[in-house]
Amino acid sequence: MSEVKAAIEGVSGFQVAGVHAGLKKDGLLDFALIVSDRPCQAAGVFTKNEVKAACVLADMKKLAENPDHIRAVAINTRCANACTGQQGIENADKMAHYTAEQLGCDAESVLVLSTGVIGTQLPMDTIKHGIDLATGNLGNDWEATARGIMTTDTRPKYASVKVQTAAGETYHIAGISKGAGMIAPNMATMLGIIVTDAGCAQPQLQHALQTAAEVSYNRIVVDGDMSTNDTVFLLANGASGVTLETEADRAQFQDALEALCVKLAQDIVRDGEGVTKFVTIKITGAPDDDAARVIANTIATSPLVKTAFYGNDANWGRIVAAAGRAGISLNQSCLKLWFSLTEDAPNPLQLIDNGLPLNYSEAEATSIVNEPAFAVLLDCGAGSGSALVWTCDLSHDYVSINGDYRS
Amino acid sequence: MSEVKAAIEGVSGFQVAGVHAGLKKDGLLDFALIVSDRPCQAAGVFTKNEVKAACVLADMKKLAENPDHIRAVAINTRCANACTGQQGIENADKMAHYTAEQLGCDAESVLVLSTGVIGTQLPMDTIKHGIDLATGNLGNDWEATARGIMTTDTRPKYASVKVQTAAGETYHIAGISKGAGMIAPNMATMLGIIVTDAGCAQPQLQHALQTAAEVSYNRIVVDGDMSTNDTVFLLANGASGVTLETEADRAQFQDALEALCVKLAQDIVRDGEGVTKFVTIKITGAPDDDAARVIANTIATSPLVKTAFYGNDANWGRIVAAAGRAGISLNQSCLKLWFSLTEDAPNPLQLIDNGLPLNYSEAEATSIVNEPAFAVLLDCGAGSGSALVWTCDLSHDYVSINGDYRS
Repeated sequence: MSEVKAAIEGVSGFQVAGVHAGLKKDGLLDFALIVSDRPCQAAGVFTKNEVKAACVLADMKKLAENPDHIRAVAINTRCANACTGQQGIENADKMAHYTAEQLGCDAESVLVLSTGVIGTQLPMDTIKHGIDLATGNLGNDWEATARGIMTTDTRPKYASVKVQTAAGETYHIAGISKGAGMIAPNMATMLGIIVTDAGCAQPQLQHALQTAAEVSYNRIVVDGDMSTNDTVFLLANGASGVTLETEADRAQFQDALEALCVKLAQDIVRDGEGVTKFVTIKITGAPDDDAARVIANTIATSPLVKTAFYGNDANWGRIVAAAGRAGISLNQSCLKLWFSLTEDAPNPLQLIDNGLPLNYSEAEATSIVNEPAFAVLLDCGAGSGSALVWTCDLSHDYVSINGDYRS
Repeated sequence: MSEVKAAIEGVSGFQVAGVHAGLKKDGLLDFALIVSDRPCQAAGVFTKNEVKAACVLADMKKLAENPDHIRAVAINTRCANACTGQQGIENADKMAHYTAEQLGCDAESVLVLSTGVIGTQLPMDTIKHGIDLATGNLGNDWEATARGIMTTDTRPKYASVKVQTAAGETYHIAGISKGAGMIAPNMATMLGIIVTDAGCAQPQLQHALQTAAEVSYNRIVVDGDMSTNDTVFLLANGASGVTLETEADRAQFQDALEALCVKLAQDIVRDGEGVTKFVTIKITGAPDDDAARVIANTIATSPLVKTAFYGNDANWGRIVAAAGRAGISLNQSCLKLWFSLTEDAPNPLQLIDNGLPLNYSEAEATSIVNEPAFAVLLDCGAGSGSALVWTCDLSHDYVSINGDYRS
């Protein structure tokens, strides 16, 4: 933790704050601000939900028009600012404008994120109070900032990495995220903000983020419900003096960024609502990679598979049946299935060969799914497509958390 | 019930039995047999799962080759005969052969159905014992027969209708089904067997069943998991003397068949695993009917929507967000949403107009979702496509039932 802290505090030119604006009860941190001391190149990936929150619409426009001098990201909890119409758009604008005023920059340089209840308007007085507090408390407390964007997350999620280039220079990447949680609200919203003090041209930065999101945030499934607010930003301010000029530099950055995003994404699953198991689904031998992903997601969202995981039940029939209904052409007599503790463990336990159960040890299979983290490996014998997805079980607590009335 | 009983017992030329073969414990009925005294035209619809049980593969072949002199359907519980390879196919054949021997007919005339655990072989001695008992107990006890195919269903599902033709003749349609339940096993299997003493050419019969299944069995969602064994049969033996010769006769038959299938299908949802709410999802204004159905199914399978129903929470944000992630192009500012007790109630409560929440009464909305049955009506404002789907909530009991270890 202290290493992470040292690394995250090493990111140059960024200041952050997590404060209690009054959106949550009991003094919990509920508002966060991330500020760069100089303009950033900024990249973003957004929810594909047709129903998009006002902040998402506002930020998409901003990044399309003005991606090269972003200065800050302001984030509130408890209100998603989704299904809020014209007033919602105006409130998102006001949130950016007021933040810009306090920071002495242009409103076009401020991105805003919201998470929480759908269909209620932002309480603008409380939001402004949060902006006042946050701008007055800027520093390097990344943990508080990560706490400031939590909803039903049980712990803050932050990560950082220090990278040394071939030329011996160093830069940092740091990020926070919030996960599949709810307070009163409605959606398993996912937010991520990543910053780096490396410099990078915007098109390359956007490409780097999209590529990284594809193998991290886009590979996690808690319950299959996609939010109206999902957003990940990547801001690069160049304060380290390192600029990613060469292919080799960018490749090194990509590796570091992907590792960081994978950690943050996996943390979201591990801390998902009611989660007791972290499960890796690895598909191989699918017709192509896209087909593999569809199969992996179908298994990962199957209530019967997820409840079996919760029940410590090595119930491979449900996994095979879920694969079979994924809409991908399969030959059932070619299926092979293994359980193991990690997706690349040396001796996975094979349960199915050529579509038929082997004479495996049920006790051994059960001992694997009894672990808090394990992997399911399915080979379809139908090609060379593969996919890796991280998911979780479906527990009584998931039902309790989401069956509770909004209050 | 007595009316149903009278009508179901009026089906001519069919005899049925439900017996305890020894597959279940405690003397519960676990094996069923339906026999016609003369050859039937037979139609079938089968699971679209790529992983198909041996009985499904055997029956698909039989109906393709020999759909016009089917005599019987034998059904066992506790073992799905899925993922059982060549031995599974041979066992399905043996089950048909032994039944045929006892009935004195051709094995090609006997259809077999299985439901239960995936990946175990049929216990053939017990199956034969069931066939012996059932053939010795043929009569008109449709309730026992419906009980004989139950898994975790809490009640038998059967229905019948007496139809009077324009010419004043009468015939009957009767059916049983089992639903989204499990014992030890793995799959929310759905089986249905419908018989009629009307006569009908096989191609028309197949068309009638497919059309009826499309608006009944294919419109229900408990958990979105599709079985390896789902099958519905329709057998017509002509014993009433009525033959469906004219378009008008067939239209009348279609109406009666669809009403019967809708009842049996809805009964499956009402008795679904852990179900406390029966929810009708009606989509209008979608780009087309297929798009409407995709939206309806996305809402019906959303864990966040289903847990909100369970929690008596009129949580429209989750419904709108689920619609938005269905993969159908929507304009969020055109959405309208109502809650009501039935899909065609005269004064539904409107919650959303033009994508924005109205100033509706939360108490009134809550009182609707507090009911054991209610309807959600979503108009997408994007065309004339519509769809109706019946679904249920996701409860703690669902997790308990499916998280329990197979035993």
